[in-house]
Amino acid sequence: MNKIYVIGIGPGNYEQMTMAAVQALEESDTIIGYTVYVDLVKDRFPGKEFLTTPMTKEVDRCVMAFEEAAKGKTVSMICSGDAGVYGMAGLMYEVGAGYPDTELQIIAGVTAANAGAAVLGAPLIHDFCLISLSDLLTPWEKIEKRLRLASEADFSIVLYNPSSKKRADYLQKACDLMLESKSPETVCGIVFNIGREGEGSRIMTLAELRDTKVDMFTTVFIGNSQTRNLKGKMVTPRGYRNV
Amino acid sequence: MNKIYVIGIGPGNYEQMTMAAVQALEESDTIIGYTVYVDLVKDRFPGKEFLTTPMTKEVDRCVMAFEEAAKGKTVSMICSGDAGVYGMAGLMYEVGAGYPDTELQIIAGVTAANAGAAVLGAPLIHDFCLISLSDLLTPWEKIEKRLRLASEADFSIVLYNPSSKKRADYLQKACDLMLESKSPETVCGIVFNIGREGEGSRIMTLAELRDTKVDMFTTVFIGNSQTRNLKGKMVTPRGYRNV
Repeated sequence: MNKIYVIGIGPGNYEQMTMAAVQALEESDTIIGYTVYVDLVKDRFPGKEFLTTPMTKEVDRCVMAFEEAAKGKTVSMICSGDAGVYGMAGLMYEVGAGYPDTELQIIAGVTAANAGAAVLGAPLIHDFCLISLSDLLTPWEKIEKRLRLASEADFSIVLYNPSSKKRADYLQKACDLMLESKSPETVCGIVFNIGREGEGSRIMTLAELRDTKVDMFTTVFIGNSQTRNLKGKMVTPRGYRNV
Repeated sequence: MNKIYVIGIGPGNYEQMTMAAVQALEESDTIIGYTVYVDLVKDRFPGKEFLTTPMTKEVDRCVMAFEEAAKGKTVSMICSGDAGVYGMAGLMYEVGAGYPDTELQIIAGVTAANAGAAVLGAPLIHDFCLISLSDLLTPWEKIEKRLRLASEADFSIVLYNPSSKKRADYLQKACDLMLESKSPETVCGIVFNIGREGEGSRIMTLAELRDTKVDMFTTVFIGNSQTRNLKGKMVTPRGYRNV
């Protein structure tokens, strides 16, 4: 039985990787990933074979992993954050249906929601949702519906892929939908380059967020009705009762 | 300026801790937490002072951390999973308002949603929500509303605190609410004792989940309309289009 590790390497800095991820990478002959992620780990694991495919070539990347494993190599497929959150773990199982002799082991990592929350303070203490604004594989109507219903339910919301060149106004559109149920004073935060050079964050209101430009390396946090700005930290209480 | 680390130690096993968490614990004089979590790390960090308070004494535990830090000690407050997800990070900021000379550094960890997803396969590849069924600090009506709206929006849903002695029928009630919008054939999974002795999982339909008993060490996963059972793994595709 061949084995492939599918590894979430965390937000980017080596220190935020789990020890299980490091062990699996050390055990591996070949490490495969999107070019940017491979560059994040390359220096830490000398002597390994590194293979990359560009963005949008995800199926090719999975096939590559299974083909390398079939040669008897120990292979790791790496993703930033957690491989199970908008990551490669799902596609690896789908492509893996054609490779019954290869077993997958998923190694969880710290996703941008959790790493970014730690930078902002404690915005995700209570119930929350993750929503990606990318409509490459999901109809925009579906994304709209989720933004509306999640706001109506007073969830804290984390937005992944809030912007790209083709989708420059999507964050603004998303804010307008959330503003149908959430107050313009709702405490929000953005974190950019989490765990990487140039890491930074800002706290603002939902009304301000609506008119803020962000790039694809930014994760966006929208509080629930109880979220407060406590001395510059975004903090959501444990519940709705004062105990 | 005194400093306290607020650390998510991950699901329980040492290997799923991040290296940043280990470094902070090694730097600490005093490690504070709920008894069960302290027992998970005690053997790995000999020579440290360990202080505990029982469950429900969370405010006392925070005060204890600030008081110890005020003595000039380096203090770590530990939580299982991620300190920012139903954890102590928020309360530490709230209590910390009374201790302006102490700075907090939050160190993110792998929460049960991500660690459990890795055991089940890849259930959280697309948009998802976390909902706690504990009504200790949140009115049940609010929880009901979130379950209903999250189901209507076709989110994958992760349930924390799905059961306790006093709330034996809450998972059943939650399933009935989700069944208003989700198909009884929706693929679901449960993971128990994640990262600890006796770890295990089961995949089933939402109709079957409704009649399943779980304990407080179980995390429950409900798929979206696209989630499939692929050879015993719970897998959610990346979107709604076949690309």
